[in-house]
Parts: sequence; C-alpha cells; structure tokens
Amino acid sequence: MGPKSAQRLAFHLFSQPEADVRELAGAIIGAKESLASGPICLNIMDARQEECAVCSDDLRERNLICVVEQPADVLALERSGEYGGLYHVLHGALSPMNGIGPEQLRFGLLLERLGDVSEVILATSTTVEGEATAMYLARLLKDRDLPVSRIAYGLPVGGDLEYADEATLGRAIAHRRAV
Amino acid sequence: MGPKSAQRLAFHLFSQPEADVRELAGAIIGAKESLASGPICLNIMDARQEECAVCSDDLRERNLICVVEQPADVLALERSGEYGGLYHVLHGALSPMNGIGPEQLRFGLLLERLGDVSEVILATSTTVEGEATAMYLARLLKDRDLPVSRIAYGLPVGGDLEYADEATLGRAIAHRRAV
Repeated sequence: MGPKSAQRLAFHLFSQPEADVRELAGAIIGAKESLASGPICLNIMDARQEECAVCSDDLRERNLICVVEQPADVLALERSGEYGGLYHVLHGALSPMNGIGPEQLRFGLLLERLGDVSEVILATSTTVEGEATAMYLARLLKDRDLPVSRIAYGLPVGGDLEYADEATLGRAIAHRRAV
Repeated sequence: MGPKSAQRLAFHLFSQPEADVRELAGAIIGAKESLASGPICLNIMDARQEECAVCSDDLRERNLICVVEQPADVLALERSGEYGGLYHVLHGALSPMNGIGPEQLRFGLLLERLGDVSEVILATSTTVEGEATAMYLARLLKDRDLPVSRIAYGLPVGGDLEYADEATLGRAIAHRRAV
C-alpha cells in the first residue's frame, strides 16, 4: 500500500467510533491467528489444519511441484483449472537490491521435499526478479538431475500482435509450437 | 475510427482554410498512390518497387513463411528482431458474422506460393477470429503435408501471474517448456 492510501485509511479510522475501530483491529488479529503457512509448501492455510487445502487433496498429482512467488499465484493458477499437482510458495523472488537472496527465500525447504518428483515447474513471474529466481532454481535443480520446466512466454489469449511489446512478440515467435 | 472521432475531424476540417484542406486531401491521395500491395506477400510496399522490402531482401530465409493478419503485424514482428523469414499478409481474419470467409482472405494466393517451404508459421492474433483463421489454415496446410507452427501463447515478458487472465495462465502452464 502506498503512503497516500495509508494516510487516507489512518484519517478514516480516526473519524470512526472507538468500538468500530476495536472491532476492526480484533478482526485483523483474528484473521492473522486463523491462518498459517503450510509446513511443506508454505502456502496459506487454515491454522486448525495440518496441511494446506492443496496438499491435503488426495486427487492431486504428488510428484509434480509448481514453484510460485506468492500465495495469490496459487489462487490464480487454481482458477485456470489447468494444473493438478502440488505447489511450493517462495514468498518472494530474488532481489539483491532489496537484500533478498537464496537464504531469505529458504530454497533449502524446496530442495528437501524433492525426493520423488517427476517435474518441477518454475512459475515465478516473468519480471526481472521472477526470471532471475527461475534461472537460479533451474541451475540448482539441474545439478540434482531433476526435470525442470518454465511456464510459457507468449501472447495473451485474445490479444492482437500489434499491441504486444517487442520482447513478448519475440518470445512468441521463437517459442512457436508445431500444430 | 469511431463516429465521434470522425465527427471531430470533420468539424476541424470545416474550420480550416480551403487551401490547407486541399493540401491534406492531396497528401492522402499521394500516400495512397505511392503504396501498393506486394504481388506475392500482399504486404504494403513502395509502388515504384517490384517487391516489398522484406521479399526483396536477399538475407531473409526464403523457405520460411509467417502468416499475419495485417501489414502492421509485419512491422511489429520486425521490431522484435526474432524473425528472419518472409511474410504473407491476409488483410483480415475469418469472421463469418461479418461475411469474411476463406474466399475474402484469398487463401489461394498463400497456397500458390508454398511450393518449396520448410515451415509455415501461423501468426494471426489470438482473438477468436485470429484463432479460427489459424485453425482453418492449419487444417488446409496439413492436407498438403506442410509443416505448420503457431506462435506461442503465454505470459507477457515482465508480467505477474496474479494479473494474468485465467485462459492465458492456463495456456502458460499447459505449454510450459523444459529448461
């Protein structure tokens, strides 16, 4: 949240009755307390459960791990309906400028769970940080002889070539698929 | 151009001196007269030349044909710097609702030039019409045993998973590439 939105919220809260503000604060604490990080995948989960909703679903392919930056990315991929494996949430991406290195993202936790895995899908974002994270992980996993893939770059569905940026269009043509 | 922009232009022209309006009309006629369609590729070209700038370039791969909807798409792909073959401009996409069928797009002209081609890349847009055109052409070309490919769908370069639509994210994960 930017400083302007934060200031607007602060002034708004100041203008509310104290009881309402206490109720909001209580709700925020309650939400925080009722959520936890999955012990293996680090995805957001109900604190009363042992595992996150994906990990505890017996119908998921358990030897397929999709690595994402944020819990919101898990929701986005679930909405697409195209993925049936498990997730691993990094809670960030490599960003040396901001002091986020491999230790901060706890790559060790990911490596620990890769005993019996048929494919690791790197679904970090396509920003500079997300790409750097994917490249770093790809090298790390290749050293362990694990099959690694990266989500596809290309044109969005419903898009016009004319409005695509050059870098995306370059990837779309370089990564074309036989039909 | 929409009716509002057209009306704004019409009123603007009405308010200008007649000499300026005549000059503009002359420039429009001049531009139209100095441009032509490439005899083979249908791309926009200088009317004084025999071929378009791409077709007449000896450094291009002549057995690679990229099919696009509009001349503007040629410019977009050229800017990406990733493509070194020839083009074929359809000047539209299949759209039965608007009365545009295979005859209107003159697919025959495309088929005529495919004697010695190693790959036809279908780079129509990823809209419903562009996709229908690509599927129609793919079937047509497969019947002639020509290798056909389609530009990649996926995330744009520099994008966040969270902001991608479901259909695009679904393709990005389904079309992931081994690294």
